[in-house]
Amino acid sequence: MRIAIASDHAAFSLKRELAQWLAEQGHEVTDLGSDSEASVDYPDYGYAIANHIAEGRAERGIALCGSGIGIAIAVNRHPGARCAQVAEPLSARLARSHNDANVIALGARLIGADMARACIEAFLSTAFAGERHQRRVAKLSHPAIAGACAMKAETA
Amino acid sequence: MRIAIASDHAAFSLKRELAQWLAEQGHEVTDLGSDSEASVDYPDYGYAIANHIAEGRAERGIALCGSGIGIAIAVNRHPGARCAQVAEPLSARLARSHNDANVIALGARLIGADMARACIEAFLSTAFAGERHQRRVAKLSHPAIAGACAMKAETA
Repeated sequence: MRIAIASDHAAFSLKRELAQWLAEQGHEVTDLGSDSEASVDYPDYGYAIANHIAEGRAERGIALCGSGIGIAIAVNRHPGARCAQVAEPLSARLARSHNDANVIALGARLIGADMARACIEAFLSTAFAGERHQRRVAKLSHPAIAGACAMKAETA
Repeated sequence: MRIAIASDHAAFSLKRELAQWLAEQGHEVTDLGSDSEASVDYPDYGYAIANHIAEGRAERGIALCGSGIGIAIAVNRHPGARCAQVAEPLSARLARSHNDANVIALGARLIGADMARACIEAFLSTAFAGERHQRRVAKLSHPAIAGACAMKAETA
């Protein structure tokens, strides 16, 4: 599977560890940065992974920051991304089966590497359940989004 | 404090309990639905609370669905909302201090009522830390958002 991974400085070390682990499993991993522990802004990396996913350049994304909260907000600004911030595998599984999530966000300062791997395994191995969930997932792109964007344009 | 609260059917019962508890504490609570356990679509309630917050009609929002995942994605579609999906108070606190979150999302099928209350207490009582976090929070509204919205308009 083509997997994009991105983080801010707080999660740089965990990102590198997870990227290597995913590559060893045979996945095609694209590391979108950051590239060191120098301080950066998590929204930049959230937008990078959202655009990468929305452009079809990867099937799944893994977004990391200190808590997972900030980068998840950034990823979800993009109507083509559906990002679940998770801290345990049940939520990672539900994010796929109910919400067709294409990105998960993990907090490097809140969970350890083994828990991160368990979340990612659940995320990568669970199929979307479709049916009634499909209508709801569709609403995450239409049409209220357009309204929100229009509102933004007026105030920009 | 003016607090808006919204949920889908899966969290209807918890929403009612939390709304009553918040009102008893003296908060001005606006319940944006849903109004029963009849099946509804969580994005509709996520957009309702995001618009309510963005219009300045409440200072804080509490969004609930079965996992908290879907409604958090919906709320974060709106550039004026910053929603953290949380399952314990530390994340609720970090969401305020680092991300200036104005909405938290809780999963009624994942956490109990006492944990929900502990998350809400942390969320309502923690101030934004500002400083370096201010620049990052500002990026959650500008300018990549505009790019994402433009992209959406092209594909709508």
